[in-house]
Amino acid sequence: MKIHLVNPNTTASMTQQALVAANKVRASTTKIIATQPDYGPVSIEGYYDEVFSIPGMLELIAANNDCDAHVIACFDDTGLDAARCLADAPVVGICEAACLNAVLLANSFSIVTTLSRSVPALQHLTTRYGMKERCVSVRASDIAVLDLENETKEATDVLHREIEIALVKDGAEAIVLGCAGMTDMAESVSQKFGVPVIDGVSAAIKLAEGLVSQQLQTSRVRGYAKPINKPYSGKFSCYKP
Amino acid sequence: MKIHLVNPNTTASMTQQALVAANKVRASTTKIIATQPDYGPVSIEGYYDEVFSIPGMLELIAANNDCDAHVIACFDDTGLDAARCLADAPVVGICEAACLNAVLLANSFSIVTTLSRSVPALQHLTTRYGMKERCVSVRASDIAVLDLENETKEATDVLHREIEIALVKDGAEAIVLGCAGMTDMAESVSQKFGVPVIDGVSAAIKLAEGLVSQQLQTSRVRGYAKPINKPYSGKFSCYKP
Amino acid sequence: MKIHLVNPNTTASMTQQALVAANKVRASTTKIIATQPDYGPVSIEGYYDEVFSIPGMLELIAANNDCDAHVIACFDDTGLDAARCLADAPVVGICEAACLNAVLLANSFSIVTTLSRSVPALQHLTTRYGMKERCVSVRASDIAVLDLENETKEATDVLHREIEIALVKDGAEAIVLGCAGMTDMAESVSQKFGVPVIDGVSAAIKLAEGLVSQQLQTSRVRGYAKPINKPYSGKFSCYKP
Amino acid sequence: MKIHLVNPNTTASMTQQALVAANKVRASTTKIIATQPDYGPVSIEGYYDEVFSIPGMLELIAANNDCDAHVIACFDDTGLDAARCLADAPVVGICEAACLNAVLLANSFSIVTTLSRSVPALQHLTTRYGMKERCVSVRASDIAVLDLENETKEATDVLHREIEIALVKDGAEAIVLGCAGMTDMAESVSQKFGVPVIDGVSAAIKLAEGLVSQQLQTSRVRGYAKPINKPYSGKFSCYKP
Amino acid sequence: MKIHLVNPNTTASMTQQALVAANKVRASTTKIIATQPDYGPVSIEGYYDEVFSIPGMLELIAANNDCDAHVIACFDDTGLDAARCLADAPVVGICEAACLNAVLLANSFSIVTTLSRSVPALQHLTTRYGMKERCVSVRASDIAVLDLENETKEATDVLHREIEIALVKDGAEAIVLGCAGMTDMAESVSQKFGVPVIDGVSAAIKLAEGLVSQQLQTSRVRGYAKPINKPYSGKFSCYKP
Amino acid sequence: MKIHLVNPNTTASMTQQALVAANKVRASTTKIIATQPDYGPVSIEGYYDEVFSIPGMLELIAANNDCDAHVIACFDDTGLDAARCLADAPVVGICEAACLNAVLLANSFSIVTTLSRSVPALQHLTTRYGMKERCVSVRASDIAVLDLENETKEATDVLHREIEIALVKDGAEAIVLGCAGMTDMAESVSQKFGVPVIDGVSAAIKLAEGLVSQQLQTSRVRGYAKPINKPYSGKFSCYKP
Repeated sequence: MKIHLVNPNTTASMTQQALVAANKVRASTTKIIATQPDYGPVSIEGYYDEVFSIPGMLELIAANNDCDAHVIACFDDTGLDAARCLADAPVVGICEAACLNAVLLANSFSIVTTLSRSVPALQHLTTRYGMKERCVSVRASDIAVLDLENETKEATDVLHREIEIALVKDGAEAIVLGCAGMTDMAESVSQKFGVPVIDGVSAAIKLAEGLVSQQLQTSRVRGYAKPINKPYSGKFSCYKP
Repeated sequence: MKIHLVNPNTTASMTQQALVAANKVRASTTKIIATQPDYGPVSIEGYYDEVFSIPGMLELIAANNDCDAHVIACFDDTGLDAARCLADAPVVGICEAACLNAVLLANSFSIVTTLSRSVPALQHLTTRYGMKERCVSVRASDIAVLDLENETKEATDVLHREIEIALVKDGAEAIVLGCAGMTDMAESVSQKFGVPVIDGVSAAIKLAEGLVSQQLQTSRVRGYAKPINKPYSGKFSCYKP
Repeated sequence: MKIHLVNPNTTASMTQQALVAANKVRASTTKIIATQPDYGPVSIEGYYDEVFSIPGMLELIAANNDCDAHVIACFDDTGLDAARCLADAPVVGICEAACLNAVLLANSFSIVTTLSRSVPALQHLTTRYGMKERCVSVRASDIAVLDLENETKEATDVLHREIEIALVKDGAEAIVLGCAGMTDMAESVSQKFGVPVIDGVSAAIKLAEGLVSQQLQTSRVRGYAKPINKPYSGKFSCYKP
Repeated sequence: MKIHLVNPNTTASMTQQALVAANKVRASTTKIIATQPDYGPVSIEGYYDEVFSIPGMLELIAANNDCDAHVIACFDDTGLDAARCLADAPVVGICEAACLNAVLLANSFSIVTTLSRSVPALQHLTTRYGMKERCVSVRASDIAVLDLENETKEATDVLHREIEIALVKDGAEAIVLGCAGMTDMAESVSQKFGVPVIDGVSAAIKLAEGLVSQQLQTSRVRGYAKPINKPYSGKFSCYKP
Repeated sequence: MKIHLVNPNTTASMTQQALVAANKVRASTTKIIATQPDYGPVSIEGYYDEVFSIPGMLELIAANNDCDAHVIACFDDTGLDAARCLADAPVVGICEAACLNAVLLANSFSIVTTLSRSVPALQHLTTRYGMKERCVSVRASDIAVLDLENETKEATDVLHREIEIALVKDGAEAIVLGCAGMTDMAESVSQKFGVPVIDGVSAAIKLAEGLVSQQLQTSRVRGYAKPINKPYSGKFSCYKP
Repeated sequence: MKIHLVNPNTTASMTQQALVAANKVRASTTKIIATQPDYGPVSIEGYYDEVFSIPGMLELIAANNDCDAHVIACFDDTGLDAARCLADAPVVGICEAACLNAVLLANSFSIVTTLSRSVPALQHLTTRYGMKERCVSVRASDIAVLDLENETKEATDVLHREIEIALVKDGAEAIVLGCAGMTDMAESVSQKFGVPVIDGVSAAIKLAEGLVSQQLQTSRVRGYAKPINKPYSGKFSCYKP
């Protein structure tokens, strides 16, 4: 089976990091095709960046429409609904996937993410996914996405402090890493704190494989009906603030 | 005061219809500037069309950044969060505005919209706006947006039937018209059924005026922080299904 | 247009304070008629005082039934439902108005009020208005309503401390002032903390103007049906429909 | 033990009907003191009537402040919060009591009441009492309270039809009679439909006895703090704390 | 009337403690029959112990099927649903009973229990009972059930500290004792903190008496239908319907 | 990898049916070990049967504690919480699994189950799993579990009728088969109605494989802490930790 792993931002090193995580967990018979758009923002932090990452991502989904499933490797589940309308195959978001795995292991969990500007968007997602009661907090470390790659001791300390508060004060029984750029921290965090730590990319790859094995397809009734063929005038060139 | 009324689709006649509604209710000292993007979809029906209407709409918001407020004239409140991040002035969506006015007049209301593919998106919005209990149903007439303009007797009959079910069976005390293209039906529907009928464009214009009069601005703390200035590579050219 | 601004307690100086706020934001064509009952409690703090303020307030609404809208200037939205049944014109409460404005500017907000005995009543209101998720806390400064007028440094300090906790710990992006007597603090608080601060009186005046401009009336179906003409024996001189 | 059963409307025959129900279930050592105010509305139907029944009811609660508990015999739980602030002894409302008994017997229940104008108020109550999920519907027969006393075959038929819909279509496992005036129908309805039928007056008397036996008192922390002794100008002779 | 008070664990001293509490509040005409199973766990702490206490408890309910009501004296409301299906008479759980009494006295309450492993189970119960909004926290003292009997000063101190946090920080207006083994602490805790303290055993006895006085029975429609008579192979001697 | 598929009832033919479904979707490197207890009820319909199926099931989980994951093949997710406490490896329930897969494919879904006595239990589960908004209805066909095996035309017709109502009236976009005994109908139902049809056994096997691939374990903090080693007197031979 072929799974298309699409990173909606233009930073290739983040795509590679996601691919490494995906390859660790995929079935031996699964092939991962990892892509990122060649236009749009270099990282996705908050509502605004999301907008300009989706068109490029949808182009990639269309270009890889022969894949058996698609995984969107951004924790905002950027463009997930539109992708489901477009793609012939199932589409899984990594926030959604991480939440759905967390509840199999724990009565409650917390999400630890990067910037506080992303917190409301993640809270809206967890509400939509029915995880409002199970997700006891969304905590921001206020380390920018691209700074995560340098994994300085200071960045790690800040992250660890938020995780400790989540476990001790918020009553979390598990931790969800709330950014595709945190993928490689799952193991060390889990060992340090002795609780399950869920990485969305890994979780999404396995959910996608599961849907394909069950031969399940996105419903075409109501919300995810195929897009109507209508005029889309013009070309896109976006305002940069 | 100047209010920017932006129709996120490319159909100028819909912009004009919204402008007529806006002019009916605006204060005498308010000037409405109505725009629509010159690229993107001709109408917005469902999750997919939304994506490609937002970049053009944001360009218009940036170009009219000197206005005192912006109103997004699409009932999906397309791109509302991103617009709030970008614009210096407050931004109001018409779904949000219609819901917030309905609860001032009635214990419960129903939304009547066009295609059933839009229903889940509207249900997600009403949940986000805290209206899940007050909005007792979202009903689709399955008349396409652009067909609304011809207002045939058949289209009207279908719409009226759904409104009757909303009032009698769902227990609605008021009706919200769930499409910018229905703006001119508010009066006739209200007279026929004897209940308040709320049009989102009118409601949003008055909310926008209200925010400006109170000198209130979008919060820059957390979710609606101004976008980070980061590289946005490329130009946009979208897949058309 | 004429808007009746009714303060449900008998303290005329609070009526005047509300009138000042109303006059600052009203349209030039709007006339505000400010009243307070001549019987009932001098201030409204908690469930008990509410009861005895409503009959007098309803008499005033009946006496001003020719107005285009009514605004109830008490943050408990005292008697709002009954007023909607009675009045021919729309009625807006200031708690409701403040919440509905806050969500146009922020993903989350906190209410800062006077006495902790009022907190449960305000929590019930925010739940009814669908704001349970958006209103992240209701905080009491435990300064009595009538002491607010003296605005000592101590009172201000206590209030500011609660606002700081709301912003830093509860994750509020905006502040709602939870008492009609706090109306004149909105500007200074907003400047100090750099977030939107919403005063209910101002918000309600603009919502009322908005409903009138849209020619919208309270629904008479079900909950807000006009009162049945039935015997009301005893000491109430107020309007019997 | 002495329980004060107060009917908040002025119709003595309804007080007597409630007293009959109370006497059927009270412990042999319990004495019921039944009262109704001598001013206010003859029946309570909707938000408006509630307002004018509460001052008289509170006077009666003050006059019977030596009782061990109070039961408010109106299904709107009229003035319950204020009564809890005022009374030295616990206070139980009959809507609250009926709901709390229903969930001991059934996974879900429906309330059948009189006029549809009362439905939103009852829905707000069930939400406040946490019964939104368990109370699957509130159905109105549209028979006025005072007409219930004549129990014509037609009135009975309409009521039975609504109960049947509640059981078959709404999935109710039990029925709550949503009006103090329906008290004497509990037995016949239960026999006809073979499900538990809960009358609020009976339920409230037993809850009140239970609180007294446990020597439990209303909390004086926050919401139900004793009223502040403040000037109440004008026509109210009722207890000022 | 005869009420069967069943302690689902095998520790007879806990049964006796519950019986003492029950005898303090029962009506003079009520006889309490207290039992515990002769097989199963010695105490119930968390999901696992619950499983093995229910079969023995159901045997006792079957053996005492002539009683007028049953009370399950474990704060997890162990096997309550199954007991309702089996027993001819009503069944009341002590967690449920405590919550239903707390809301008659306070706008909000906290549960203080023994081990933190029990917290998620209690949170699930309060959600099911509709108490999610009213129950502002479930706090664990991490004192094991059987250690409670020794009531050392240290154990008492820990418990008091959690209660103080519940009142000051969580905003509780009343305290529910979250373990059958805490029954004898209700009075001292109430005196120390000046708020209502609810013991589930006492509350449940009075609710059970109330249901019997009202001649109410468990609904047999849907969820609590009598068990189907089907083969139960193996080691269970308990009642097969 | 070895997955233990445990059918909690004693009917071996149902185990075999579940095994067939599991084998269809498992990875080639996964071995399924299917078991059922030798004591307990022959089928699980409602709250009562659940109780007596869990001890036997837990014995099997203890006996297969070397497996990499366990799947509980009963749609009531019987004993899932206790199993998670006991087992060293992750445990997945089939109701939970089906719901978590449905939301990856559809905005809303309905569960179609056997007897109406099971409906409340399933509604409690979907609420616990956060699926209350997404699961728009739980419909019962009132065909007993063991009668499903005969798949008469009549039984099929009844089931299809309920599915049609779910899709047309309740607004479901996908169907979840709410009984382990319906596993072999997924394909035919999906073809007839053109929507995704999810079978819990298949879904759970893939989720279990996914957790193992990610090396994720059940959290031992709070709710799923390992059982305390305490005396379990009497007839249970099952694992004592």
